[in-house]
Amino acid sequence: MPAAFEVITEELDTPFLAVDIEAMERNLASMAAAARARRLALRPHAKTHKCPEIARRQVEHGATGLSVATVGEAEIFAAAGFTDLFIAYPIWAVGVRGTRLRALAEQASLRVGIDSAEGAQVLARAVAGTVVETLVEIDSGHHRSGVQPERAAEVAMAAARAGLVVSGVFTFPGHSYGPGRGRQAASDEADALTEAAASLRKAGMEVEVCSGGSTPTATMADAAALTEIRPGVYLFNDAQQAELGTCGWPDVALTAVSTVVSSAGRRVVLDAGSKVLGADQPAWTTGGGRLPDHPDARIVALSEHHATVVLPDDGVSLRRGDVVRVAPNHVCAAVNLANELVVLAQGAEVDRWTVAARGANT
Amino acid sequence: MPAAFEVITEELDTPFLAVDIEAMERNLASMAAAARARRLALRPHAKTHKCPEIARRQVEHGATGLSVATVGEAEIFAAAGFTDLFIAYPIWAVGVRGTRLRALAEQASLRVGIDSAEGAQVLARAVAGTVVETLVEIDSGHHRSGVQPERAAEVAMAAARAGLVVSGVFTFPGHSYGPGRGRQAASDEADALTEAAASLRKAGMEVEVCSGGSTPTATMADAAALTEIRPGVYLFNDAQQAELGTCGWPDVALTAVSTVVSSAGRRVVLDAGSKVLGADQPAWTTGGGRLPDHPDARIVALSEHHATVVLPDDGVSLRRGDVVRVAPNHVCAAVNLANELVVLAQGAEVDRWTVAARGANT
Repeated sequence: MPAAFEVITEELDTPFLAVDIEAMERNLASMAAAARARRLALRPHAKTHKCPEIARRQVEHGATGLSVATVGEAEIFAAAGFTDLFIAYPIWAVGVRGTRLRALAEQASLRVGIDSAEGAQVLARAVAGTVVETLVEIDSGHHRSGVQPERAAEVAMAAARAGLVVSGVFTFPGHSYGPGRGRQAASDEADALTEAAASLRKAGMEVEVCSGGSTPTATMADAAALTEIRPGVYLFNDAQQAELGTCGWPDVALTAVSTVVSSAGRRVVLDAGSKVLGADQPAWTTGGGRLPDHPDARIVALSEHHATVVLPDDGVSLRRGDVVRVAPNHVCAAVNLANELVVLAQGAEVDRWTVAARGANT
Repeated sequence: MPAAFEVITEELDTPFLAVDIEAMERNLASMAAAARARRLALRPHAKTHKCPEIARRQVEHGATGLSVATVGEAEIFAAAGFTDLFIAYPIWAVGVRGTRLRALAEQASLRVGIDSAEGAQVLARAVAGTVVETLVEIDSGHHRSGVQPERAAEVAMAAARAGLVVSGVFTFPGHSYGPGRGRQAASDEADALTEAAASLRKAGMEVEVCSGGSTPTATMADAAALTEIRPGVYLFNDAQQAELGTCGWPDVALTAVSTVVSSAGRRVVLDAGSKVLGADQPAWTTGGGRLPDHPDARIVALSEHHATVVLPDDGVSLRRGDVVRVAPNHVCAAVNLANELVVLAQGAEVDRWTVAARGANT
């Protein structure tokens, strides 16, 4: 860890989230290059960073637009000047949400996910008189929302009958999150999107967009099956991505800077807990996050304000007062807990970014 | 679920956190009565609710002061007029944090945790010239921060030598969080506090405070060993407490109100995910939270904006657009994700409370 961290923490109490801007820029450039090489549109998922400053850099690197998870995120990025937005979620557009969607459609080029005829009809009523494109969500193996590929045309035709523009299909191959699962998930994604697109074409519909891509699968995306990828985590990476092998530790661009507050031999306690790191901990991870500068250390327990770390017997020691970087397991969760990100270059503070869409869950 | 929920959600987009104020008042009264019956001081942990409005009700029910987890929480509650505060954490009081602690000590009657001679010395330098009471943290079996009971006097004497006031000892029996573990944890807590207090007395020190108590153990606290309990979750409860048997479903006073957005047979997806509920999911829980009105349903997966629910074959069905209450596994994590709580009486909105100390992690 750069020694400058010790200087920063004299003026800034731990824990806080720090962005290594050089690592982030490398990650942005590398994903943009991978998308260009495959002639895939890159529409990064802004739910990861929730910061207009970062979205701007993604667009500078060639992103064609942004993906978001909620109407609230779309509103914040539209207000910040981003006019090509895809809400990659099967929105149920009743009540105030319908009114908000209609207002958004008047400000931005808006795409929305649908995964049922009923959802499409509710959406069509809400946005009647405006132009909202839709993409049918396909279940490519994650078994969350989305229809089976063979049912895509049924939903698409219902949407078209309800008066919506249908531009194609999308999926999230979330079953890529597991050791060794990326390649199969990328293949499932390609198969599902190909079958769904074929079913739409067979029903006489045009398919402009086949959108997929998670961070673990984005660079393996099948350029024959997809037109667009929507990775989110890639710009920061996190302990999960490093443990999956999607990135190395030097590619982890966001960490929680924390202090050792308690110590008992090889067990130490850091002041970054689940209220800073998030509590995501799939069974295949090694613990509650990782210490990139101490790769053999393990976070054996997370409480709200404590990370309990066990150090290997033959490794370095950590003493009370030491400042340590922690990579959260899931960076999207960590960012959503912070009000701002401290931006560092060469270990020195150069900026702060407000997490503008933090908590924008509706 | 009261039918009024359907009315509220016409004006308020899901997901949002709702407080059933009648259930909360019953929980407040019941814990206050339990503490009175055992002649234990009640110092509720405000990290759970982070709302001055709720802290005020806890004081009205007889709380002697508040527990908080961070200097930031202490600052917010001090500014709201709460002048008896215990930061139940082994604070490492360097840099700005030291300055902030000194300012707090001038506004409020302040107690701070310590668990090492070194931490006590750092604290003493930071708050020199003000009165800050300290309690030595004891590890009663949770193996997080805190010293073994036999080392309590060593830390206490170092603190006294450094010029701090030592008022006693405290512990958090966090190993109570597991099925059937509450009684043993309460017994461990009593033993550890008794041994630690005896060691202080043997060293010639007075022991005014023996503070313990988690929500699962608070009503079993040994009144001969403790002087004070610090439960946090009890006023809301959550899926963990219900699954542990600490409370019943009608005692769960905070839920995430959410909408069914996707459906595939007995599998439905709700719009409350881990960015609303938190991702806490100990191995002994049944899933990512519970549906109090559908106790046989299981949340088999949580993503950031999706809860995937499997309904039993012989139970009720849920359809797209249905509004459903979800009890988070860990209510402290859920509250810390929200900007405000919607307060309901008889299912109708009566107030909104700002989560004033949300994100106050430093």
